[in-house]
Amino acid sequence: MLDALRLPFSFDSRAGSATLRRAAPTDADAIIALLSDDPISASRGDVASDADRPAYASALDEILADPSNELLVVELGGAVVGTLQLTSIPGMARRGSKRLLVEAVRVRSDLRSSGIGSAVMRWVSDTAAPALGAAMVQLTSDAARTDAHRFYERLGYVGSHVGFKYRVTR
Amino acid sequence: MLDALRLPFSFDSRAGSATLRRAAPTDADAIIALLSDDPISASRGDVASDADRPAYASALDEILADPSNELLVVELGGAVVGTLQLTSIPGMARRGSKRLLVEAVRVRSDLRSSGIGSAVMRWVSDTAAPALGAAMVQLTSDAARTDAHRFYERLGYVGSHVGFKYRVTR
Repeated sequence: MLDALRLPFSFDSRAGSATLRRAAPTDADAIIALLSDDPISASRGDVASDADRPAYASALDEILADPSNELLVVELGGAVVGTLQLTSIPGMARRGSKRLLVEAVRVRSDLRSSGIGSAVMRWVSDTAAPALGAAMVQLTSDAARTDAHRFYERLGYVGSHVGFKYRVTR
Repeated sequence: MLDALRLPFSFDSRAGSATLRRAAPTDADAIIALLSDDPISASRGDVASDADRPAYASALDEILADPSNELLVVELGGAVVGTLQLTSIPGMARRGSKRLLVEAVRVRSDLRSSGIGSAVMRWVSDTAAPALGAAMVQLTSDAARTDAHRFYERLGYVGSHVGFKYRVTR
């Protein structure tokens, strides 16, 4: 948990009033459903299979217990309709700047373009990052997600880097 | 400090025998010099200015005290000639996979193409990531660093993502 974040955060969207709050272990199923509600994620193995439930539950516990990480969910009309993860990272580069890494941003497919994602990402950039003392927010987005790229660019993000991934063989 | 990493790690390079070890507070000046020994970093403000020394020293202390982060240096002939930072990040995506983030990889400019960077990155992918239980290693590289991109591709990294950065206004 990132203690410095003041949550919950309530905001309006075109789909109604929504709340961004810290995730709890009971949100596991909803988060798993959001991760699989996306063809690119599904192609990487996030298919909400029962067999994977223990791995997700254990990851959720680990994130919740980690002082550098925060897992968030968006609630709308009593349902969890969005999620994202934040990681606060100290660093030497850029004159000893702290970074805030954003991972696994998802909004339920029928609610995309409702303003939920924008409101949440604006909160990340304008509220969460300053509260954590971060000089930079960073994220990577699959090259195939061109809609997402336009979304981030509209919010002031600059796609200045190439994101490299290496799959560890075990 | 990432306790699971077995360090120091000794390896051969075309410039001689080198050692990868955990950074200490006394390495601050050497790391600052490495960060400024690069035109792209220098353009972001890493110019080894005396005025920035306290910010770097404080960032170094914070990284060394952080259980999710490791700051490493490469020693060759008694000099610090390389550095990189590792961050272990639990996550829900990809079936609850842990990721290992690599940041601020630098090798002294006269020693590039000496095999030091390859040996260190192979250790990251093949030794550090499995020891930490990470299923993926990820990093971003400035779009202008085309030599670095070829370097990572040769090591099996796939540039599948766009890396977005947002500069926080404070």
